[in-house]
Amino acid sequence: MVRARSEERRADILRAALEVIAERGYRGATLGSVAERVGLTQQGLLHYFPTKEALLVAVLEERDRWDTSGGRDRAGWRLDLLESLVEYNAMRPGIVQTFSALLGESVTDEHPARAFFTERYAQVRSSMAQVLRLEYGERLPSGLTPERAAPLLTAVMDGLQYQWLLDPAAVDMPAAFRDFLHLLHGDGPRPGMMGS
Amino acid sequence: MVRARSEERRADILRAALEVIAERGYRGATLGSVAERVGLTQQGLLHYFPTKEALLVAVLEERDRWDTSGGRDRAGWRLDLLESLVEYNAMRPGIVQTFSALLGESVTDEHPARAFFTERYAQVRSSMAQVLRLEYGERLPSGLTPERAAPLLTAVMDGLQYQWLLDPAAVDMPAAFRDFLHLLHGDGPRPGMMGS
Repeated sequence: MVRARSEERRADILRAALEVIAERGYRGATLGSVAERVGLTQQGLLHYFPTKEALLVAVLEERDRWDTSGGRDRAGWRLDLLESLVEYNAMRPGIVQTFSALLGESVTDEHPARAFFTERYAQVRSSMAQVLRLEYGERLPSGLTPERAAPLLTAVMDGLQYQWLLDPAAVDMPAAFRDFLHLLHGDGPRPGMMGS
Repeated sequence: MVRARSEERRADILRAALEVIAERGYRGATLGSVAERVGLTQQGLLHYFPTKEALLVAVLEERDRWDTSGGRDRAGWRLDLLESLVEYNAMRPGIVQTFSALLGESVTDEHPARAFFTERYAQVRSSMAQVLRLEYGERLPSGLTPERAAPLLTAVMDGLQYQWLLDPAAVDMPAAFRDFLHLLHGDGPRPGMMGS
């Protein structure tokens, strides 16, 4: 019972931290503002997360857990699941905002999330290449190898998120991502692509 | 003579601001740290830029001027010039770092660069569509209209920059961008694409 309450509180803190990072970025976020949002003193929060960096690491891990929810880990990704992930992301701007703000900050000097993102991208590119190899073999119909298509697939997902966060009415993120999958597949004009 | 010295000083301040933003992000940057880097007091810096936001706006304008240097404005872009721009960016990580850090921060709440980036992206997508229309007409060989290809072209440029900044040895940004141009063109395997 005590354990359950403690885990619940931990989850509350992570949710609050995600919100505060989305609003102010990690550098602008303070432990005090996270504690206040969840109704704890800063001392109380430090009981769960002894440093701001420990909280950040937990936030990043939590976010990745959500992406791979339902028992699927990255090794089980398929191209059509990626399409669903982008559709899912389009329904949760807060999470995408947290991710995009952190990714942006991570390229500044000595940022605590830098190593996480560097490692994450190496893994993501490798998983993407695996997904593409399962679907297409050693060469996509468009002529690219899985290893050369993987960074493009990843870049499109990230880049579309910024455009969509800045102007959701102007950018249909899932439709644009589907357009890119058709380009990757190299299957030329399709009925769904005839509109502008 | 006095005027020339003042403009030189202004350019020094902008350069220092670019560096500080690349290192710490805009939220982490202080006017004091910019002043110190350029050998001014904070009061002296305020003579040139009365607020931190005014300095940010000048930095963003300056960055865009560089992109369109040599008398070309965006209306004069061509696809092969975009390729050169990406190659040029791969030689100036500091500028790309400033841009990427600011883009990341701009999606946080009430960020002073948010309106700039929202407006900029609407313009960039429109210019990209224009470039693609000049090259391909109303429909690309891959089947997309210029308006549907434009956000993808933009997303690939931004997304590749993050991967490249985090791990320059793992991501050949100009080569990946050329791969994407071939996908857009929809011209299938090419000799240059046969390597992995």
